Amino acid sequence: MGEDKIAIIGGTGDLGFGLALRWARAGVQVIVGSRDEARAKEAAQRIQETLNAHAPMEPGRFSISGLENAQAAAQAPVLVLAVPISAQVDILKSIRGSLKGAILVDATVPLAAALGGKPTRMLRLWQGSAAAQARELVPATTPVLAAFHNVSAGALQDLSVTPECDILVCGDDEAAKQILFRLVNLIPGLRAIDAGPLEMSSIVEGITALLISVNRRYRVHHSGIRITGLELKT
Amino acid sequence: MGEDKIAIIGGTGDLGFGLALRWARAGVQVIVGSRDEARAKEAAQRIQETLNAHAPMEPGRFSISGLENAQAAAQAPVLVLAVPISAQVDILKSIRGSLKGAILVDATVPLAAALGGKPTRMLRLWQGSAAAQARELVPATTPVLAAFHNVSAGALQDLSVTPECDILVCGDDEAAKQILFRLVNLIPGLRAIDAGPLEMSSIVEGITALLISVNRRYRVHHSGIRITGLELKT
Repeated sequence: MGEDKIAIIGGTGDLGFGLALRWARAGVQVIVGSRDEARAKEAAQRIQETLNAHAPMEPGRFSISGLENAQAAAQAPVLVLAVPISAQVDILKSIRGSLKGAILVDATVPLAAALGGKPTRMLRLWQGSAAAQARELVPATTPVLAAFHNVSAGALQDLSVTPECDILVCGDDEAAKQILFRLVNLIPGLRAIDAGPLEMSSIVEGITALLISVNRRYRVHHSGIRITGLELKT
Repeated sequence: MGEDKIAIIGGTGDLGFGLALRWARAGVQVIVGSRDEARAKEAAQRIQETLNAHAPMEPGRFSISGLENAQAAAQAPVLVLAVPISAQVDILKSIRGSLKGAILVDATVPLAAALGGKPTRMLRLWQGSAAAQARELVPATTPVLAAFHNVSAGALQDLSVTPECDILVCGDDEAAKQILFRLVNLIPGLRAIDAGPLEMSSIVEGITALLISVNRRYRVHHSGIRITGLELKT
């Protein structure tokens, strides 16, 4: 068991559950957060059972627990916010008093579907992106990163699949980025890419709508992206 | 020599020149367009010489000519508009009377650099994207597609390199898309991807700013993108 510890705020949703499953499998201590503690504990239990079924020789090897969101947020140095855009503001307000020195990783995608529009269209938030909105809502001392928008939640949840996606990480705190890069790279199939400052999240969030469009056109579920051409340094 | 014929409006710029070079090499008849006919002819001559140097046993195999933009536009069934955002409107106005039945492929990227801003930031155009702006400026009967925003112009121009990039094609005319997909796939290393309707160009154009950000962070010149996960159909 490693010393890594991550709380997933919204860990009962598709993306949060998938990330919790993959990180727990990789030996990270995972705390599933939910507005409803009972649902958090139930999701943690399901992850434990899924992983035990995949590794029957090593029961109890995985560390997953479930807590109410604010309690979960107080327990880990890295928090991933994996909630619908419709819930982002309320949940951030509910946990921001509990953040202490944690890094907040926002994965929110402002799809127009939140207002009944198309999932291939984006809402234009005043701040420029959901991550910029998160940045406004938490203390200035909290490092805010944006990541995990583009990876298929379905692929993360299905242990028979290896996800195939680069994780574009945006943020203005280099030390926080380095911590997240290592955690991303613990999950086979994911590769962390430094996409630049937090303001680039505007584009990275939009790529989700693009991948939804591609999924529809190609009748697939798990499209993702890879950045090419990083090998040849100047 | 195939029957394919493409005019590159702005064919003396980096992206246009690179596409002209690659298509001519693939056996497509290429017309390089420029506001200045002499510069168009000079670029065509340079492409001819570059290709002859790479294939000295087959002199004269390649068909490249140079014309003023409007004349070039009148000569080909497929036009690629590869001009800076600062020139897009004026050049479209200058060629729209010459379009006839041609397909217009817009490759314009509205980078904030056009107004002295950062190349990692986008201008927010009233229409939503440069391609939507192009759509407004040409007759309704002209099919408008958006493509080629994300491929490295430098990689296209350097025949010692194989570009490694998917070409995300947006548009509302399915027949026009099929024609472009085939032309894209003539260039080794490029792969056409159907990204959905023309309105998705808003996101595809933005990916260029993201790749510029990645190029800077990783000190590379030719980053690109690949879409993953298209193999497993439902």
